[in-house]
Amino acid sequence: MSLLVVGSLALDTVKTPFGSVEDALGGAAVYFSSAASYFSPVKMVGVVGDDFDAAALDYLKARNTDLRGVETRNGKTFRWGGVYGSDLNSRETTFTHLNVFESFQPKIPAEYRDSEYVFLANIGPELQADVLNQIQGPKLVALDTMNYWIDGSLSALREVLRSVQVLVINDSEAQQLSGEWNLVKAARAIFKMGPELLIVKKGEHGALMIFKDVSFFYAPAYPLEVLHDPTGAGDSFAGGFMGYLAQAGEINPDHFKRALVVGSTMASFCVEQFSVKRLVDLSQGEIEERFNEFWRMTQFQPF
Amino acid sequence: MSLLVVGSLALDTVKTPFGSVEDALGGAAVYFSSAASYFSPVKMVGVVGDDFDAAALDYLKARNTDLRGVETRNGKTFRWGGVYGSDLNSRETTFTHLNVFESFQPKIPAEYRDSEYVFLANIGPELQADVLNQIQGPKLVALDTMNYWIDGSLSALREVLRSVQVLVINDSEAQQLSGEWNLVKAARAIFKMGPELLIVKKGEHGALMIFKDVSFFYAPAYPLEVLHDPTGAGDSFAGGFMGYLAQAGEINPDHFKRALVVGSTMASFCVEQFSVKRLVDLSQGEIEERFNEFWRMTQFQPF
Repeated sequence: MSLLVVGSLALDTVKTPFGSVEDALGGAAVYFSSAASYFSPVKMVGVVGDDFDAAALDYLKARNTDLRGVETRNGKTFRWGGVYGSDLNSRETTFTHLNVFESFQPKIPAEYRDSEYVFLANIGPELQADVLNQIQGPKLVALDTMNYWIDGSLSALREVLRSVQVLVINDSEAQQLSGEWNLVKAARAIFKMGPELLIVKKGEHGALMIFKDVSFFYAPAYPLEVLHDPTGAGDSFAGGFMGYLAQAGEINPDHFKRALVVGSTMASFCVEQFSVKRLVDLSQGEIEERFNEFWRMTQFQPF
Repeated sequence: MSLLVVGSLALDTVKTPFGSVEDALGGAAVYFSSAASYFSPVKMVGVVGDDFDAAALDYLKARNTDLRGVETRNGKTFRWGGVYGSDLNSRETTFTHLNVFESFQPKIPAEYRDSEYVFLANIGPELQADVLNQIQGPKLVALDTMNYWIDGSLSALREVLRSVQVLVINDSEAQQLSGEWNLVKAARAIFKMGPELLIVKKGEHGALMIFKDVSFFYAPAYPLEVLHDPTGAGDSFAGGFMGYLAQAGEINPDHFKRALVVGSTMASFCVEQFSVKRLVDLSQGEIEERFNEFWRMTQFQPF
């Protein structure tokens, strides 16, 4: 099945208690594709500057990622800098240079327009809507957003949400979007906006999935002993989730549940190293073994 | 199997965004017994003042709770007051009047001394050690503690931990006790102190159990839509955990896992109402149904 992602490609400068990197490969579309491409071919749409080393994406090409939708423009690539606190839960953004990303207008190549699975990474909701207008009848659209858009572009966000089946956001964003502290109440409010499935990312506390009938599925985060850099965890999670669904082909609750665990699996690899290092050359065996660790961590007998 | 709990009986004055109560039944031993007594007879040790209405514990008596270890002394019962913030995660203690609890010296009645399962609720570690000295060869001892004792009575705490199999604490306490931010590293450090099983309570984020071989089991918190008062959730959790183990009789990893989910089940009921209201007259069916909700929200197929 065909899987499209639209989002940022970036060069990140990150400092954590465990080290630092400068101008390292990053961006939502990159993390997403790095995780998703283990499960499904990915079609990528984004923009880089003429300073971007195209060879940095060779590992994605080797895993059937279609880069024809990645535009190269005159100017510099989007750069982001951040510093994490000692427990890795707090983060301070040191700079955001949008550069060529500032005027990003997603152009969906003709060969991408029949994509069945679509992930709209965290960009402006008008652009997310514009992407959907260029796609013919997708089977499943998932969307990520952030406080910035909920604050500043709420009506555009509400508009695009009407065409979205899966909303993937963190707990504070779910609260802000719905105006509800309680996540169950937040889910009820969000289901009225369009989405049929809410995934609440809770970082080190895992991810809660709420179905439209207000039943739940929960995947913990893997308790890692070595954890270097949380950057990209959410997008790697989304990549594993959507990649698995695209591979599975059929959409049903059991696939959503396993997809949530695949997402958590890929996020757990992501944070073990800086940038996408850990996501470059995982083996199928490593992924299955980690997935089964999640299984062992959660299984018990009912009454 | 016989289950002993030593800890506080209190009258709580609590305010949350959903209401308030004054001098309501509370205390660690009360919450623990309220949950545990659905699974196993409980022997309770604690102290109340002469202002305590003994009839308040009739519901526990009716569920085979032995109250002969609850001393009544001249003076007032331990009183605690707290106010919760809008998201129920932050709590401010408004007063702590120890009253008769200040000079509490646990005396274990002769009939209690062969107790096989022992829960040492959060009291001074010297008193916890004193309890263990009065018990003959218990099968399983679990202990709760808090930042106050880790700060002020660390050597006494380290001493009693040598005789404890299960440590039940929250994440910040595990970090403080071990000096490690990372919970896996914290567990390794704590295993060197005596315990063979670490349960990290994470409130609304569930509970992580770490076995001595550093394998994991995770139970989420139930996503409640109606949640009135988090007071006592941790002790209700411990009560469900120990009550289930005492009922099961045999100690093995599968029982520990189900016990963790029973603990989470009882905590989820506790927080639905103020004080112990929700724990007074649950039916077996309600408990099994909630337990099976946890099962449905975590089960998936491995690779």
